[in-house]
Amino acid sequence: MKVLGLDPGTVATGFGIVSFESGRLGLERCGVWRPPARMALAEKLDFLLSAALELLGEVHPAAVSVETVFAARNVASALKLSHARGVLLAAASRSAVPVFEYEPRLVKKALVGYGQAEKEQVRAMVLSLLARHRARVPLDAADALALAICHVHAAPTSSGPLRGPWK
Amino acid sequence: MKVLGLDPGTVATGFGIVSFESGRLGLERCGVWRPPARMALAEKLDFLLSAALELLGEVHPAAVSVETVFAARNVASALKLSHARGVLLAAASRSAVPVFEYEPRLVKKALVGYGQAEKEQVRAMVLSLLARHRARVPLDAADALALAICHVHAAPTSSGPLRGPWK
Repeated sequence: MKVLGLDPGTVATGFGIVSFESGRLGLERCGVWRPPARMALAEKLDFLLSAALELLGEVHPAAVSVETVFAARNVASALKLSHARGVLLAAASRSAVPVFEYEPRLVKKALVGYGQAEKEQVRAMVLSLLARHRARVPLDAADALALAICHVHAAPTSSGPLRGPWK
Repeated sequence: MKVLGLDPGTVATGFGIVSFESGRLGLERCGVWRPPARMALAEKLDFLLSAALELLGEVHPAAVSVETVFAARNVASALKLSHARGVLLAAASRSAVPVFEYEPRLVKKALVGYGQAEKEQVRAMVLSLLARHRARVPLDAADALALAICHVHAAPTSSGPLRGPWK
């Protein structure tokens, strides 16, 4: 099973694909999409749409995993992020890949063991779990990989319950 | 010149295309896209993406006009709306149509003459300006048409200044 985690943003969108076969976690591919800064917002979104469609077409993951969106801290940032998120979700649907979403505390719990973990602890655990591939993981892709790993934990092939696609 | 106004939403997205030739305003097409309620969010967004790409491909407008997004009243609604807005902006860029955005008070000023006008006044003015086509204008498309008309007012073929694409 391959799972694609996505960490949306109009400046940088992290992506990370993990494989999970016979109880073994592997790194398929990861990286960051950065639309050129000179682009207008609409162009950046189209850039992300193309990148996501291309990746989804190449890899055919079983699922896309994203974080729930909320505007606790910065509403303007959350609105911008939601533009990118919308485009990525549309790309997933267009590629017939189901989308699953997880609350930040669930991602932390799946990776570190408790929901109040710091961002740095989550990233350290991602690098630890993918230790063989450590050199290939840019920092900006770690959160996306955490989401992919979280879905592997939650999926029925593992112990956790399946989370339904977000309505 | 044809201008496409878009009023994004995941439940309903209004669209309206006006033509402006020799100082005369005409209604090209208008309506509402309603993704089926049973669809997951990602599917709804893909539904809107397809609809927008199809319309843009058929009509080839000179510009897309949208309202600025802000979360003054309801953050959750604004986040949902931003998902749809992102997809529509990507569709415009993919179709090589420039996007222009206007603040709500500018739209009101362009239509009614002052920025504090009520929503109903704006809608009444849209119907009045497009009186010949009145029967073809559903209420949900009136705001999209107001945005298209606002761009006609602001574009250099008219008297107002050109607003640049939103960065």
